[in-house]
Amino acid sequence: MFFSKKARNDGILEGDAKIFGPSVIGQKTLIGDSVIIGYPIKRKIIILSNKASFSTYDDVSEGTRIGADCIIRSGTIIYESSQLGNDVETGHNVLVREKTVVGDGTRIGTHSVIDGNVQIGNRNNLQTGVYIPPGTSIGSNIFMGPFVTVTNDKYPPSPKVSGVTISDNAIIGCRSVLIAGIKIGEEALVGAGSVVTKDVPPRTVVLGVPARKVMTRDEYDRKQKNYLAQP
Amino acid sequence: MFFSKKARNDGILEGDAKIFGPSVIGQKTLIGDSVIIGYPIKRKIIILSNKASFSTYDDVSEGTRIGADCIIRSGTIIYESSQLGNDVETGHNVLVREKTVVGDGTRIGTHSVIDGNVQIGNRNNLQTGVYIPPGTSIGSNIFMGPFVTVTNDKYPPSPKVSGVTISDNAIIGCRSVLIAGIKIGEEALVGAGSVVTKDVPPRTVVLGVPARKVMTRDEYDRKQKNYLAQP
Amino acid sequence: MFFSKKARNDGILEGDAKIFGPSVIGQKTLIGDSVIIGYPIKRKIIILSNKASFSTYDDVSEGTRIGADCIIRSGTIIYESSQLGNDVETGHNVLVREKTVVGDGTRIGTHSVIDGNVQIGNRNNLQTGVYIPPGTSIGSNIFMGPFVTVTNDKYPPSPKVSGVTISDNAIIGCRSVLIAGIKIGEEALVGAGSVVTKDVPPRTVVLGVPARKVMTRDEYDRKQKNYLAQP
Repeated sequence: MFFSKKARNDGILEGDAKIFGPSVIGQKTLIGDSVIIGYPIKRKIIILSNKASFSTYDDVSEGTRIGADCIIRSGTIIYESSQLGNDVETGHNVLVREKTVVGDGTRIGTHSVIDGNVQIGNRNNLQTGVYIPPGTSIGSNIFMGPFVTVTNDKYPPSPKVSGVTISDNAIIGCRSVLIAGIKIGEEALVGAGSVVTKDVPPRTVVLGVPARKVMTRDEYDRKQKNYLAQP
Repeated sequence: MFFSKKARNDGILEGDAKIFGPSVIGQKTLIGDSVIIGYPIKRKIIILSNKASFSTYDDVSEGTRIGADCIIRSGTIIYESSQLGNDVETGHNVLVREKTVVGDGTRIGTHSVIDGNVQIGNRNNLQTGVYIPPGTSIGSNIFMGPFVTVTNDKYPPSPKVSGVTISDNAIIGCRSVLIAGIKIGEEALVGAGSVVTKDVPPRTVVLGVPARKVMTRDEYDRKQKNYLAQP
Repeated sequence: MFFSKKARNDGILEGDAKIFGPSVIGQKTLIGDSVIIGYPIKRKIIILSNKASFSTYDDVSEGTRIGADCIIRSGTIIYESSQLGNDVETGHNVLVREKTVVGDGTRIGTHSVIDGNVQIGNRNNLQTGVYIPPGTSIGSNIFMGPFVTVTNDKYPPSPKVSGVTISDNAIIGCRSVLIAGIKIGEEALVGAGSVVTKDVPPRTVVLGVPARKVMTRDEYDRKQKNYLAQP
């Protein structure tokens, strides 16, 4: 257990937790067992080298802000300089690295990794094992199935970041790969297991490796409606 | 460390562990470091909100039953109201959510997630990083390669669960995706990296995106036999 | 916290850690919170059965050697009889099983699993969620994108290990699957989302399911150069 004197906690600690730097935790937020909040970035860790400890981490951490009514499940690690809104929920063992913004009502599934410098809007549902690299921009009301993987380098390995943009109300199927630099349009849908190499226009459904248009979102919505009407 | 007064432990605790509610742990079962047994479901956690703690969790947990001769490796979390048979083995950091039944002799690999309301039979071998959603039914003597992902929603995101059925003696290759509602027949085989969108008949081998029949299980067994005969 | 009397530590412990057997930790190496070093293999754990504990583990562990200037991040577990060079870095919750050799300057991303009996050379960059099974041989200066999965059984499930060989300077794109027994040539490149079923010659770029040659490495390098020259 470590709790920074610079931090302010209006939430509840489930068990052991480490809270570094001037972190702020909102009302009724649950911090699960073994959670780490405000963990310092690599550069600072290396400088500390010979004297790393919870109190030295606390000295260098800029802290992280977590809103009210959140559930941060056990084993989750949130680096410094990030900001989570209200009513955010993480699964177990989630990693959220530095300079990430997560909007109100967004859920991030177990074992997901948000690898820093990522913008995530409101009311998104990221399922288990999602991977989001630096430079990704995610709107609101988006559904991402299990193990969706987003990339940010068109010609790896290179130092250039080409972030993917995912627009509001998009649906990304399970285990899809989104190639660096593409834009997923509003209300677009990517079928499960696809590799998406080009922009997807709004309200378009793509599928396959590489992903190609298979129908419109209108057709998909009709199929979904029929599916739900079946017993 | 937390050990419920309502729990019965005939096994061995490797190190720190949390055991909630009327959980039962069988003889010679090893509970690894940082394991959590009988963790309460979300609804209960939310109700607790302002006063969450190990003792309040213990009050509300229905506990979980774990048989004899199991190895539950470090970091594994098993929610309440689940039941593991004898000789079950988990890798590290496995998540088994509520109302899951796991039969005797089944292995669940490191980082796998069994997401609740799942039936799993006997002597299955689930490798690293497998994902099994609610509503899935898994028979016995099944092999699932690393990172196999099963889905349960044909038109995501929807509230309707269309569970996948995997029949006895099936083999599911590494990183395959099984689309919601399909049935994998007895002794069927799915090649690595496939996306399976339709039922697979018994003793049929499918491969590809989408998966298509490439041979019979008889042919596969012959090829396997030749492979094993090579030096 | 457990620290073997047989171990030698010239590094720094960030917080809680368990160090078993005659492990050696080099100068300026950082051991993160909840890290386990020198964890015994399954056979030994089973023999211990009724009396498993940190001190009995310590008795049977052969220990593991970790070089200088490493960062072993929180939650990482390194089994006994492995050897990490200098300047090795792991992400959080990495698993490195027994008899694995990792060369100087290699990075292994968060949630990756190196499943034992693996040779990994110098200055490799393995991103988040990579899976490497027993028998794999990885050269030096290799880049593996997130969630690359390597296999080692051509006709699963079988007891025969057909390890994949990845030669120096190869680049393996995100979420690719490498089928058992193949060889990736020097400076070869596998595009994201591919399933590679055959050997890839040196300086060849393959893509798709199954992967086929799409260009030479020379062409790729030109494209990468143009990409980097764009604003």
